[in-house]
Amino acid sequence: MPTFQTVRGMRDLLAEEAETLNFITCKARETAQLYGYKEAITPIVEPYELLGAKSGEEIRQRMFTFQDLGDRTVALRPEFTASIARLATTALKTEPKPLRVFSVGSVYRYDEPQRGRYREFWQSNFELMGSSTPEADAETILLTNNLMKATGLQKYTFKIGHIGVIRGMLNKEDVDDKTQNKILQLMDKKEYDKALKLIKGKESRMLLQGLLELKEETPLETAMQIQDYVDCCEEAAAAADNLLSILWLVDECDCPVETVDPAFARGLEYYTGMIFEVNVPELDVALGGGGRYDKLIEVFGGEPTPAVGVAHGLDRIALAMQTQKTALPTRQGKRVVVIPVQEALKGEAIKIAHMLREAGVLVEFEVMGRKMGKALEDADRRKMDYAVIVGEREMDEDAVVVRDLAKHEQTTVKIGKLVEKIKG
Amino acid sequence: MPTFQTVRGMRDLLAEEAETLNFITCKARETAQLYGYKEAITPIVEPYELLGAKSGEEIRQRMFTFQDLGDRTVALRPEFTASIARLATTALKTEPKPLRVFSVGSVYRYDEPQRGRYREFWQSNFELMGSSTPEADAETILLTNNLMKATGLQKYTFKIGHIGVIRGMLNKEDVDDKTQNKILQLMDKKEYDKALKLIKGKESRMLLQGLLELKEETPLETAMQIQDYVDCCEEAAAAADNLLSILWLVDECDCPVETVDPAFARGLEYYTGMIFEVNVPELDVALGGGGRYDKLIEVFGGEPTPAVGVAHGLDRIALAMQTQKTALPTRQGKRVVVIPVQEALKGEAIKIAHMLREAGVLVEFEVMGRKMGKALEDADRRKMDYAVIVGEREMDEDAVVVRDLAKHEQTTVKIGKLVEKIKG
Repeated sequence: MPTFQTVRGMRDLLAEEAETLNFITCKARETAQLYGYKEAITPIVEPYELLGAKSGEEIRQRMFTFQDLGDRTVALRPEFTASIARLATTALKTEPKPLRVFSVGSVYRYDEPQRGRYREFWQSNFELMGSSTPEADAETILLTNNLMKATGLQKYTFKIGHIGVIRGMLNKEDVDDKTQNKILQLMDKKEYDKALKLIKGKESRMLLQGLLELKEETPLETAMQIQDYVDCCEEAAAAADNLLSILWLVDECDCPVETVDPAFARGLEYYTGMIFEVNVPELDVALGGGGRYDKLIEVFGGEPTPAVGVAHGLDRIALAMQTQKTALPTRQGKRVVVIPVQEALKGEAIKIAHMLREAGVLVEFEVMGRKMGKALEDADRRKMDYAVIVGEREMDEDAVVVRDLAKHEQTTVKIGKLVEKIKG
Repeated sequence: MPTFQTVRGMRDLLAEEAETLNFITCKARETAQLYGYKEAITPIVEPYELLGAKSGEEIRQRMFTFQDLGDRTVALRPEFTASIARLATTALKTEPKPLRVFSVGSVYRYDEPQRGRYREFWQSNFELMGSSTPEADAETILLTNNLMKATGLQKYTFKIGHIGVIRGMLNKEDVDDKTQNKILQLMDKKEYDKALKLIKGKESRMLLQGLLELKEETPLETAMQIQDYVDCCEEAAAAADNLLSILWLVDECDCPVETVDPAFARGLEYYTGMIFEVNVPELDVALGGGGRYDKLIEVFGGEPTPAVGVAHGLDRIALAMQTQKTALPTRQGKRVVVIPVQEALKGEAIKIAHMLREAGVLVEFEVMGRKMGKALEDADRRKMDYAVIVGEREMDEDAVVVRDLAKHEQTTVKIGKLVEKIKG
């Protein structure tokens, strides 16, 4: 006989793990409503061309790509942004701006499985399209703050950077785009020495090194220090001003920004402005991250549209909650088993179960045909609150026996009073 | 510039369509809680062998099958039962019975796209394992009734049949298993003449034809007629008794069973007992269906385990709701835009937006930097309830202007009283 397992890198989520993921999904959806984001449900299977259009080579190689039966090259989405950019250039093309779009679901990457990294994982994704103001950037940070708070996580902090500051300086030093991308990729891997070596000319290199090493007591001070440092370069200075504006806005809302890091870069090539991540001290992977990407919609054939977005790793949030022992809200309502004393009373018993459920009571019906003792033992083990025992003698008087399983007490209750008795 | 589309047979669900699918998912999850089903989240990508183990050739050929980068043959799940059967023989193997498992999510079949049929679609799936009693069969019908009712659908009805009755008669007439499967497949396609022709011997054929044509005024009468008709055959008679027991139980709970159909068969080979479907008059595809499959867990290497289950087509339910113009519950709570009168007040304004959201108010912040007139016009178009206007003069007195967008009235409100004013 075969025993089957899940595909490597994929998991079953059972009981509390499933509850936790659902809880986080729920909080993400509530956050979307609170901030005015409309939900879009897009396919998991998308044209390879769409998904490959803007991802770097690294992600493209790690996609689940295949031919469908109609010989189309398709892939499982590795993230949401490409699908939402597709919407922005098609179905939502004529919608007035700003466009706020929320999505949540599973995404797929062929990574080496490890703690907090799976080949199927869950994201909530927020995109705000059409605005280039710092308010828009601040909004993606603030809604992330809202989600983190709603999950009950403690000690999470934000790290913020700005691709525009670095690019501005590199442009001033005449570093070509291709080299800039390489430098940012190396910085994302924290290989700063390698990154700096790509800059020709000692003076240029020293200038950038100085920028990357700026660090003051507080995030705002670091941002102001960056502003001073890049004063000489118009493009970088505008980016530094922008970073400071965003910081001031999120600071108004008690958002725990711990670090402004001039050396912070994120892997994806498409970021053009502010970038951020949220972390907890217990995990070395970010729980979420995003930033501004003002050129991306064009890649998908749309009008030039400024945009900023964020994706949250729901399984990583779940892992953080587990590590911090964050309690899920306890479920309201009593749980009841309904047990007929004998075969002939099954019809009456199922009717009573139906009545209780209509009143919103959680009912498990005894479907195993077990003797009363066995059924009650099982109800005890399942930590049910009450057993409703349907017996002939009581039914003759339109009543049932209600057993409080915690207190080991039982009373006879008229059927007309049963819902009231259970719901208290 | 490229314009991208979805893969053929896959759709984007936007705005109300997304809301409807989420609403139904929510109701399915509530039903699961009400009936004591624990949720399992299983991967969308599963080993081909697992998914192919019990599906007939027809489904196997319509699966999205491919090699992953580790050269494993995998496929996108065409339904949930195989994954849940895997759980029953692995992670949940030692769990005491009955085992009630709920799942919800997207499934994939390479079908010809048409109204109500897509290549990516959504199901909620309930499996009850370990019980062979008619109460268990009744439960899957009743929880389906609960879900239909919760969505607000009207005029839905159930059709019930029993594979055991037909198989019992065919066994008695010495029709081999392979021919039986063919007969059932033809019956599922309503090709009764072709089905009957596969039976050798005129008498046998007449006997089965007589069974298939039984029909009385009410479902219960038809079931009793079937009972009479198969009286001569022990196996079929036991099945008919079982069908009647199930009917009696669901009848106790006002479940709208319209038809008991002795000629009713469902495509999948693994059903062994009661089968059912739920339909609305407006659609010619079923909204959900299921039945008993007592041999399936063995196929997956488990102990012999009686089981009964049901899957609901969530997009078909959505289509039925759309056709019947079923209203979604209106969302509670006021929707507010917050608009700073001038650039310098953005910080104050975002702080007020934050305060409102902390109190649970839905706030869209003006991120376009538009002039007041334009921003208010946009808020009108979006049918927002209030605009909170943050201006210098009012801020000097710790107040803002609140504009009721429906009534075209505005008043000055102290910030300390703002939440109260908005929430009413």
